[in-house]
Amino acid sequence: MASFAQTGRKIVAIGRNYAKHAKELGNAVPEKPFFFLKPTSSYLLNGGKVEIPRGVTVHHEVELGVVIGKTGRDISATQAEEYVAGYALGIDMTGRNVQDAAKKKGLPWTAAKGFDTFTPISGFIPKSAVSDPSNLNLWLKINGAFKQNGNTGDMIFRIPQLIEHVSSIMTLEEGDLILTGTPEGVGAIQAGDKITAGLQLPSTNDSLVALEFDVVDRNGGFAFE
Amino acid sequence: MASFAQTGRKIVAIGRNYAKHAKELGNAVPEKPFFFLKPTSSYLLNGGKVEIPRGVTVHHEVELGVVIGKTGRDISATQAEEYVAGYALGIDMTGRNVQDAAKKKGLPWTAAKGFDTFTPISGFIPKSAVSDPSNLNLWLKINGAFKQNGNTGDMIFRIPQLIEHVSSIMTLEEGDLILTGTPEGVGAIQAGDKITAGLQLPSTNDSLVALEFDVVDRNGGFAFE
Ligand SMILES: [Mg+2]
Ligand SMILES: [Mg+2]
Ligand SMILES: [Mg+2]
Repeated sequence: MASFAQTGRKIVAIGRNYAKHAKELGNAVPEKPFFFLKPTSSYLLNGGKVEIPRGVTVHHEVELGVVIGKTGRDISATQAEEYVAGYALGIDMTGRNVQDAAKKKGLPWTAAKGFDTFTPISGFIPKSAVSDPSNLNLWLKINGAFKQNGNTGDMIFRIPQLIEHVSSIMTLEEGDLILTGTPEGVGAIQAGDKITAGLQLPSTNDSLVALEFDVVDRNGGFAFE
Repeated sequence: MASFAQTGRKIVAIGRNYAKHAKELGNAVPEKPFFFLKPTSSYLLNGGKVEIPRGVTVHHEVELGVVIGKTGRDISATQAEEYVAGYALGIDMTGRNVQDAAKKKGLPWTAAKGFDTFTPISGFIPKSAVSDPSNLNLWLKINGAFKQNGNTGDMIFRIPQLIEHVSSIMTLEEGDLILTGTPEGVGAIQAGDKITAGLQLPSTNDSLVALEFDVVDRNGGFAFE
């Protein structure tokens, strides 16, 4: 599973899974989990360049990723842990104005979430390195200043519930990634920015991963009008 | 590319690409193409069983699929044909009540479109077998009665434009499938139904593929409320 970003076939991203984030965008806290898909072509490995498509307001959403280790469907929350191979730190980049326009028209979120480079991702973190995934600090800085600094304990729906819900709809396969939602503090990035992000065990302050990405303007391609 | 259903990493599905279908659901004809993703876990090979999730109204949408043969982005319409390996006949199964609820709330279409077995698909049709993809008959029957019977010449946005649009947002990769939208006549299927579908060259009436699926109720899993 170390190569999930090269071999995985889907990225399932949970929406509004931290109450303060739902509220900061003026959304209700969901009663049930909901999710969307990001294409695996949007993965960006550590050190890569995040591209801003023309006319698009791009927001960062730092999220804990869960890497699926074996195929299953109708996985119960109590069995979910067996299906987890490990974790990764990801950023669910979002074209906020593209998403807002889609939401207003009742159209899919796909383009807003699926541009190339819109899923910056860390390397694989084996499950053995994380004793409690519901108590991890995750943070994101722009040019050295904290923008997001949350703890996975604030998730509305925990990882086992997410796996149960998603796998009741679609089979989860080895190498699939579930992005578990973002804590508050999302905001826009600009060309020239440096994004750093990390995931830490609060007990020891040990960093599990450290991410670093430069932001550039995309040449050509889609333009939001 | 014969094994695109086993190896491909994304399914890009175009919405409302035939005017009469847009109108039959009370939607405006789009000024620009739009699309959503279906998970590759929703593929169902010929002869398989389409599952009806509990409480879900499942509509059939027969569609021409385009199988991508090489990786590219910012592919111009004039170059698009080089990126096409071939075709397939697919059915974009849709949980219509799940989709309607999502549209009303401005939420993603993902669950409505992504249940297991919701992308019945034919084998690969090499490009050499299709002299003109903009003049193919595609049809779908339920229990032997025609429900859809269209021609790809009625697409609002043709295949080269679709490839240009999608690849301006996300890189298309070898084995990816683009479902190009459905002609009018969509409607509900029920457990016990037999679905057949075909794709034909109008000049010769030769069938390129013939699909056959039984419909069953899904045991367990998601329930729409
Ligand atoms: Mg979607
Ligand atoms: Mg997110
Ligand atoms: Mg469709």
